[in-house]
Amino acid sequence: MGIQAGIVGASGFAGIELTRRLIEHPSFDLAVITSDADAGKPLAEVYPCFTGMSDLVFAQRDTPELQQCDVVFLAVPHTVALGIVPGLLAAGISVFDLSADYRLKNPTTYEHWYGVRHTSPELLPEAAFGLPELCPDEIERATQKHVAGDPVLVACAGCYPTASSLAAYPAVHADITTGMVNIQAVSGVTGAGRKATARTHYCAATENIEAYGASGHRHTPEIEQILGLPGQVVFVPHLAPLERGLLSTVTMQLKGHAAALYDVEKLQNLYEDFYHNSAFVSVLPAGEMPRTSSVVGTNRAHVGVAYQERRRTLIASCAIDNLGKGAADQAVQCANLVFGLPETEGLNTVAVPL
Amino acid sequence: MGIQAGIVGASGFAGIELTRRLIEHPSFDLAVITSDADAGKPLAEVYPCFTGMSDLVFAQRDTPELQQCDVVFLAVPHTVALGIVPGLLAAGISVFDLSADYRLKNPTTYEHWYGVRHTSPELLPEAAFGLPELCPDEIERATQKHVAGDPVLVACAGCYPTASSLAAYPAVHADITTGMVNIQAVSGVTGAGRKATARTHYCAATENIEAYGASGHRHTPEIEQILGLPGQVVFVPHLAPLERGLLSTVTMQLKGHAAALYDVEKLQNLYEDFYHNSAFVSVLPAGEMPRTSSVVGTNRAHVGVAYQERRRTLIASCAIDNLGKGAADQAVQCANLVFGLPETEGLNTVAVPL
Amino acid sequence: MGIQAGIVGASGFAGIELTRRLIEHPSFDLAVITSDADAGKPLAEVYPCFTGMSDLVFAQRDTPELQQCDVVFLAVPHTVALGIVPGLLAAGISVFDLSADYRLKNPTTYEHWYGVRHTSPELLPEAAFGLPELCPDEIERATQKHVAGDPVLVACAGCYPTASSLAAYPAVHADITTGMVNIQAVSGVTGAGRKATARTHYCAATENIEAYGASGHRHTPEIEQILGLPGQVVFVPHLAPLERGLLSTVTMQLKGHAAALYDVEKLQNLYEDFYHNSAFVSVLPAGEMPRTSSVVGTNRAHVGVAYQERRRTLIASCAIDNLGKGAADQAVQCANLVFGLPETEGLNTVAVPL
Amino acid sequence: MGIQAGIVGASGFAGIELTRRLIEHPSFDLAVITSDADAGKPLAEVYPCFTGMSDLVFAQRDTPELQQCDVVFLAVPHTVALGIVPGLLAAGISVFDLSADYRLKNPTTYEHWYGVRHTSPELLPEAAFGLPELCPDEIERATQKHVAGDPVLVACAGCYPTASSLAAYPAVHADITTGMVNIQAVSGVTGAGRKATARTHYCAATENIEAYGASGHRHTPEIEQILGLPGQVVFVPHLAPLERGLLSTVTMQLKGHAAALYDVEKLQNLYEDFYHNSAFVSVLPAGEMPRTSSVVGTNRAHVGVAYQERRRTLIASCAIDNLGKGAADQAVQCANLVFGLPETEGLNTVAVPL
Repeated sequence: MGIQAGIVGASGFAGIELTRRLIEHPSFDLAVITSDADAGKPLAEVYPCFTGMSDLVFAQRDTPELQQCDVVFLAVPHTVALGIVPGLLAAGISVFDLSADYRLKNPTTYEHWYGVRHTSPELLPEAAFGLPELCPDEIERATQKHVAGDPVLVACAGCYPTASSLAAYPAVHADITTGMVNIQAVSGVTGAGRKATARTHYCAATENIEAYGASGHRHTPEIEQILGLPGQVVFVPHLAPLERGLLSTVTMQLKGHAAALYDVEKLQNLYEDFYHNSAFVSVLPAGEMPRTSSVVGTNRAHVGVAYQERRRTLIASCAIDNLGKGAADQAVQCANLVFGLPETEGLNTVAVPL
Repeated sequence: MGIQAGIVGASGFAGIELTRRLIEHPSFDLAVITSDADAGKPLAEVYPCFTGMSDLVFAQRDTPELQQCDVVFLAVPHTVALGIVPGLLAAGISVFDLSADYRLKNPTTYEHWYGVRHTSPELLPEAAFGLPELCPDEIERATQKHVAGDPVLVACAGCYPTASSLAAYPAVHADITTGMVNIQAVSGVTGAGRKATARTHYCAATENIEAYGASGHRHTPEIEQILGLPGQVVFVPHLAPLERGLLSTVTMQLKGHAAALYDVEKLQNLYEDFYHNSAFVSVLPAGEMPRTSSVVGTNRAHVGVAYQERRRTLIASCAIDNLGKGAADQAVQCANLVFGLPETEGLNTVAVPL
Repeated sequence: MGIQAGIVGASGFAGIELTRRLIEHPSFDLAVITSDADAGKPLAEVYPCFTGMSDLVFAQRDTPELQQCDVVFLAVPHTVALGIVPGLLAAGISVFDLSADYRLKNPTTYEHWYGVRHTSPELLPEAAFGLPELCPDEIERATQKHVAGDPVLVACAGCYPTASSLAAYPAVHADITTGMVNIQAVSGVTGAGRKATARTHYCAATENIEAYGASGHRHTPEIEQILGLPGQVVFVPHLAPLERGLLSTVTMQLKGHAAALYDVEKLQNLYEDFYHNSAFVSVLPAGEMPRTSSVVGTNRAHVGVAYQERRRTLIASCAIDNLGKGAADQAVQCANLVFGLPETEGLNTVAVPL
Repeated sequence: MGIQAGIVGASGFAGIELTRRLIEHPSFDLAVITSDADAGKPLAEVYPCFTGMSDLVFAQRDTPELQQCDVVFLAVPHTVALGIVPGLLAAGISVFDLSADYRLKNPTTYEHWYGVRHTSPELLPEAAFGLPELCPDEIERATQKHVAGDPVLVACAGCYPTASSLAAYPAVHADITTGMVNIQAVSGVTGAGRKATARTHYCAATENIEAYGASGHRHTPEIEQILGLPGQVVFVPHLAPLERGLLSTVTMQLKGHAAALYDVEKLQNLYEDFYHNSAFVSVLPAGEMPRTSSVVGTNRAHVGVAYQERRRTLIASCAIDNLGKGAADQAVQCANLVFGLPETEGLNTVAVPL
């Protein structure tokens, strides 16, 4: 029998992607899925793609079955996880939280951007930040804890922070950039959630691109935390007519000495070296820029590098699936690592081509 | 070591879907992929979604490696397979042909609709028609041949014939309908092929629906052959702004005595009973109609049934992925069966939800 | 000063298209727009495309300004018009109603399909059915009434009935068809209305086609009324990933004597002759089928004709904009005619190409 | 009789939009349309949306009818206009050129970015740059020339430069920014032209976003010329699954003294004041960001302003239709001004809502 797993909030977009992944996962047994809105309904009724593939039924969030799980994935809205995590940990259950509630190490920053008091700041120091490629120590710490028999809390990175940081980090880490990290990103409509709103109406979203949150988006401090550059990130997200997919394009100026040392080939090498051992992040060949469609439905990230030499400006672009590497799949990757499974188990699929 | 497999025409839309499926297949080893247009290029260069997932390189169609294969899948245009199949069979290699060249039992019909002479009509009697749910005897015959050590030729059903026949067959088989089988179907743009044309230009295809081939489409005789109703099918296909997906909606009038015996519930039962043991075809609950998005990327078919009692008219609608159950996945399903593997091996995936 | 016009329900999809048309109309002065949901908000706030183009503000539905109008267009949901029309007529105001409430001549049929009692059946005989190309006498009668100084009620045809009837009528009128008129139609998402629902969510509607209302859609009796063929229409609508646009494809069998007399060229001539004097309906050249994108944003209808001779089956396909010829523009066309203006006034625009 | 107008390259995407605009224009008589690819074909055959609306037929580019025109619009690829403009001017015909051939004042810059020798650099000083809101003196100069009876050459601004400069200019003009002007922009697929390529295939373009030209795009020097900031612009364009529409989002850091003087409200005022008298550019209310769908099919530009105070960063976003304000409509606007017509004549339409 495999590791017993549950998903809270399984009928949302990230939750249902988790459901798909865990149903097909060799080591996790998906035993419980909950949904406040769809409790009592069969999974296949709410999402017909599961017809003939699963007999799971959505349960209430307070179902006692959740207590039988070894691990619970939370795919609930921000601020809701605050009310769930402490109880699960107290019951000895490991938690992989897709919400933002335990990502920011500084509770004051959280409270500023999310507008609520953080009710369990004591968990923040031990929560592991889940972005294995850039924060391996965090996952390693959680893994040790799991080995020691303790439940772990992993706060998986957000979608925009994941793509933006994967694009910017190798250069920032090499300390060759100066000034603001300018990030513009574009997300598909799943990023706006499953709720039917004026904004997610097909006729509002199709044939339209627009910026939002331009005066300050709450993923900014998360990116700054990952990059270790407080106050140095300008981040502007956009909504585009895609179902899934997220592209983040970062422009950064090189420091004077770095501009003397680096050309486009050396920058390409810098990125290739950095991700050389990564199972999921690929640096595309020189001159290629990533396409979101190449990674949709997967945990993969594609990174492309360009350099405008006369302007000493490095451009790095990263494509992910906002629900894959940006949410559900990254959580599974973290869980694989913490539970001592192969990092790619259940995730080693190719995007549906085209 | 697994069964050595090759794909001729692997860089087209059906070919690349076959490539994805066979790379992940537990029993087939994809050893050779050919492409006239992309020979010499790495798979991951032409389709970046394979970056980091496969080192295959497209070969020329006449590569000797093909001769080392146990089985070759043909994803070439209609009429091209005529020049390839006899040689492969003569070399003792089994062939699963996705083209139309060996589907029609009557070579005259083929020549009428495809506008070329059939150069190997002697193979038609032994070619198995590949639509396992409706023509199980054909696959059974091929399987016996394979067991006997002979190479087999399976002519996999076309995309429109698959969906249309899955919708119509249970009623036709029960002999409860009369008059024309009226079929209107809608396909995504992958159905028009990978070639860049005025018609497949994004700006021509998006925000547009249109009928085509309305004066007679060559999939009509194939549907009539499956249903056993020569001259009784009216078929009108449409092109819609989808990447993948095919929906076929069939209307048929009930015979007088059948109208007296059947109501919507009995018709629902008829369909449910017919597909009861099918691994891939699901009849949706009464009142539900299939959505193409529920089956995209898979070998699954969803069928819905409705009845307009006052007009004695049965409506059956079937959704498939034109590249999945309508092409590549169905070929893998046929190969699984012929080679004695579990029917669902390598195909048992859920559509990416939403 | 022009003819004072008002729109009730102006913030819905048909209402806002009416707003656009009437703002640019040379003879109608759009004086009042009402919206229950958006009352008090500037038009340009709710629909930013009007920024800098109009200072209109949405009023409450019971605004006294409506009483100052010469003509009121109703773009309200079915059954709501019942509560508005009698009062407007009593106040001497002509009404062009886009809802279904006064379309069906038989109130029992209305009550069966719309599930409410008809509260002003006495208006049905005098209501003019608004589909000028097929029911010119109805508009003529209304025009006479207007000339006589009386307020008129025009019940504009629905979107599916308009396209389906334009496709079928010339053949039905020539009495050359027999058996069921088989209609399958596809509408863009605006057809489902502005309300944000699970079904109109971008992620549900994109990359998906599905049938709905297959067991009987309430536009069926309206089509039968126009064609004069009670109980002879099988109609199955579909939802497709378009913003706007509606395509209806009709298949009809020719009577024996007609099959002897007609070939595809004669059928083409029949259709061309029928629409020869039409300002808005074009029969495409032989062999061409209509594209919805060619008529989006306009009052135009494109009709294509094909013939499957061996099956004695005529195929006619009609493309309209469901919000244009299928709703707002057709109402303006009717109003132009009734008020003695040129039929094409304010409507003589070309679709945005591509 | 109106001003006789011709379009060279009328069957491309910008050319066909020009065709639509000029057919409906009150003062210009569209007498000639040429197309190398479609010469001899009726306009309505190539673009069925003109069925019943125009009897124009595409002519060869060297048709003598062109010599009868008062004005010719060039919608030909870059470098092709070089071979056409001098002859037209010599024949006394005014030219509005949508290509890039006469936009850059410095022929060396042109030759660097477009890879061909400039064959008529002597025309560059007198060519007027066509972006009336930001370069009114250029249009004024051309107007004086026209009044004097001389033919004029207007080099209309490119799509990316138009949107990017409209977003950046008010702040740059006020001299409150420092450092690089960071521009990321997104264009619909019409921006890639009508030619069917692997990149414009529906299945490549849909459900995908990607950057391109990231190592340096040739619109960069044009933007720098407009802003008067050589070497100060970093510009990264993207391709998104839209038919039409272009969004450019600019981030710029405020100078120290400016940061002390300006808050978001003052920046909003700065932009509103700048565009106060503009017929086509609207600054959206504070807090609103522009949507491309609000301007599609029109000459309008919507600009939104935001400020990230802690990072001293101004964000300005501008939405246009790449074929409207970014190409055809802007050319008509320029022609209106030069010919002494009302600036908005033939352009005063509202986007099709939604």
